[in-house]
Formats: sequence, structure tokens, C-alpha cells
Amino acid sequence: MIRTRIDSSETTAVELDGVKDVAMRVLLGAADDMPNFSMRHFVVQPGGHTPKHAHDYEHQVIVLAGDGEADHGHETVQFHPGDVLYVEADQTHQFRNTGSEPVEFICLVPRTRGGGGVVPGS
Amino acid sequence: MIRTRIDSSETTAVELDGVKDVAMRVLLGAADDMPNFSMRHFVVQPGGHTPKHAHDYEHQVIVLAGDGEADHGHETVQFHPGDVLYVEADQTHQFRNTGSEPVEFICLVPRTRGGGGVVPGS
Repeated sequence: MIRTRIDSSETTAVELDGVKDVAMRVLLGAADDMPNFSMRHFVVQPGGHTPKHAHDYEHQVIVLAGDGEADHGHETVQFHPGDVLYVEADQTHQFRNTGSEPVEFICLVPRTRGGGGVVPGS
Repeated sequence: MIRTRIDSSETTAVELDGVKDVAMRVLLGAADDMPNFSMRHFVVQPGGHTPKHAHDYEHQVIVLAGDGEADHGHETVQFHPGDVLYVEADQTHQFRNTGSEPVEFICLVPRTRGGGGVVPGS
């Protein structure tokens, strides 16, 4: 059995255009030979955000900590711990931390997006 | 965007052989037309357990609350909140609550197991 833990101190800064104060870690991904989908942990600092982008695969997101808002097409929703969000393929989306504490979330992606390698996908 | 919340009061008792004091809810599944994988929320009461079984698809599990142990083939591991566990396809497995509080976990499965319908899969 593969066993790991959600640990914000184990995340690595994401350095890409459109990203501000985001760190991530692949919890179960390509390196673990996941057959169908991969699990990543993201930490977004207050004022930070993921890139505003779209791609041809979906996200399933579980909000673990913090408060923020997410764009999805023309819609914007507030999110809080315990929320579960589904981002459809091909919808422009962005996650922003609008609170005073770090936002932490789990984001799941299918293998079709490259197997859960270390890239921002939210 | 589909948005829902993790809420133990929204789960439904699982009534199947080998299951004791388990309730579950599909958070993102067949009814939501998930294209690749599905997310389910399980609550296992103290002394309760999921079935000891095997199947030809994997699980990715996030422990949200409570303490317990999981069998995976000939291995048994203790689990606690924040742990992430990967159950390989075709490995006999069971999750048991060995603590005094409810165990809550998220369990993700591929569409190949039927699309995340309301059946116990852990």
C-alpha cells in the first residue's frame, strides 16, 4: 500500500506565468504509476492565485482550509473548507485566496492530462 | 460548476454483507456525468468496517477524521487524519474504525468500476 500524508511543508513553489504564491505537491501521480487519475495538494497564500486558464481535462477539488473564490467560465463561487468543486473540461477557471489564511485544496486530474506530473493544473 | 459539501449527515447507510456501521454518499459520480473518476464520502462508526474484498480497480483515499487500520493484501497500516492511502487493483482490502470517534474518508474510484454509483467500494 502506498501511504503518504497531506503536509503543506512538503509542497514546492509553482513558478509559471499567471501563478502567484502557489505551492503544490503530487500526492499520488505519475511517479506512483497511477493507472487512471492523480491526486495533488495545493497551497495558495493570501492574495495568491492559480493561473486563469482552460484545458481539455476536468478537476475534482476538495477544499481543506482557507477561504477564496473560484472562476468557472462566467461564474464565480466562494469556497470554504469542506466544499467540493467540479471544474469541467474546457472551462476557463482560476482559484484565488481572498482570505487571511492559506488556502489548501486537493485537486484530482485524469491521466489524460499527463499522469499527474509536477505542473500546476488548477 | 458543480459545487457540493462534505457533510456526514447527508450519507446513507450501506447495507451489504461484510459491512458494519458504514454510511456513504457519492459527492461526484455517475449522476454528475463524471468522465473519468468519481468521489465518494464514507463514514465508519467506532467498531465498524468496510467489506473485506478485492476488485479490479484502484482506490485513492484521503482520511478526514478518526483513527483506524486498513488491510491491504498481507499488510495492515494504521491511519489518521491527513493520511493518503492507495489501494491497488486486485488487492484484498478493508478499512476498520479502531478509535472512539467516527472515521471519515474520501475514496476515489475510476469510471471503470461503474461510474461512482451508490455502492460500497472500500
